[in-house]
Amino acid sequence: MLLTHAMQTVPLILGSGSPRRKQLLADTGLKFSVLTKNTNEDWPADLPTDEIAAYLANKKATAFKAEAQQSIILTADTVVCVGDKVLNKAETHHQALEMLRLLAGKTHQTYTGICIRYQDQVINATAVADVTFADMPDEVLNHYINTSKPFDKAGAYGIQDWISLVGITEIKGSYYTVMGLPTHLVYAELYRLYASLQ
Amino acid sequence: MLLTHAMQTVPLILGSGSPRRKQLLADTGLKFSVLTKNTNEDWPADLPTDEIAAYLANKKATAFKAEAQQSIILTADTVVCVGDKVLNKAETHHQALEMLRLLAGKTHQTYTGICIRYQDQVINATAVADVTFADMPDEVLNHYINTSKPFDKAGAYGIQDWISLVGITEIKGSYYTVMGLPTHLVYAELYRLYASLQ
Repeated sequence: MLLTHAMQTVPLILGSGSPRRKQLLADTGLKFSVLTKNTNEDWPADLPTDEIAAYLANKKATAFKAEAQQSIILTADTVVCVGDKVLNKAETHHQALEMLRLLAGKTHQTYTGICIRYQDQVINATAVADVTFADMPDEVLNHYINTSKPFDKAGAYGIQDWISLVGITEIKGSYYTVMGLPTHLVYAELYRLYASLQ
Repeated sequence: MLLTHAMQTVPLILGSGSPRRKQLLADTGLKFSVLTKNTNEDWPADLPTDEIAAYLANKKATAFKAEAQQSIILTADTVVCVGDKVLNKAETHHQALEMLRLLAGKTHQTYTGICIRYQDQVINATAVADVTFADMPDEVLNHYINTSKPFDKAGAYGIQDWISLVGITEIKGSYYTVMGLPTHLVYAELYRLYASLQ
């Protein structure tokens, strides 16, 4: 399970514009380039919440069908859920406050689905992390929203932000799943794929 | 639970030379200075493994008895255990390999004990994280030891290192407990202490 540069006979493309995903993939030691495409991020209304992230990762990878003939494509999608409710990005201070109130004092789920596509092979996998926030008064939530403006993040918080340092009491799962890329899963699946190409 | 600079009426001193602890405490937004002293890090042979980190944090804080009259002292200690076995720092490649073989394919415990000392008040608390590594062949362990030289870290690995990205399948607890400072616990205890001084 040591995936060396010499093994990377087929180029790897990360199909994501997220700087966090780019950094995490770089930290695994793999060589890759980044290519982004816009994808409609809707999902069927009857899809179970634990399947949405994988569905969207797959949809993103489908947009790279042409590139997947010559390269291995990796895409990912992260979905934050409280019970059956999916939290997207907040657009206003009020929306962010409503979301953070839902998360405070409770455990929620963060799913990151990945899709790896190469020629006619499509690998889908999902990692889940249970994230527990301490009870936090509005004073804390408002302070965070005012100082960090978390409007680019699903669920209105970033795992590396101040509110997570002081408010998260436990994660069950991978920290990197919450950051947006389950590196252990990506590495294991890419290792298997590259090994099969040797 | 919003601990503002205005509330920090008594200076805070971090009694640790660890750059990771310094960074994490800074990320909580608190003002502090750093002061280090050497402490003998022995513990009684009959101490239960889940009490060693708190015992050593307390011992470190005792060395700041004089400073604790005017300042709040925060110290911490991190202990890595596999079952009843405590893993210290490895000194040689062979020792590091032996430790990592013990960790591979299993769940181990990382305890970080903290001690907060101010005048006659002494607060002790411990956070634990269960860390699970995938099975990893010697090829992977040797590659990691050769490239990262993890001789300054208990258990011979760093939570932000390559081996953790590709090898850790799950953490149950706080990621920051494994990094060396359970920020949620430190923040909550310091909040309570500063609030009591208002």
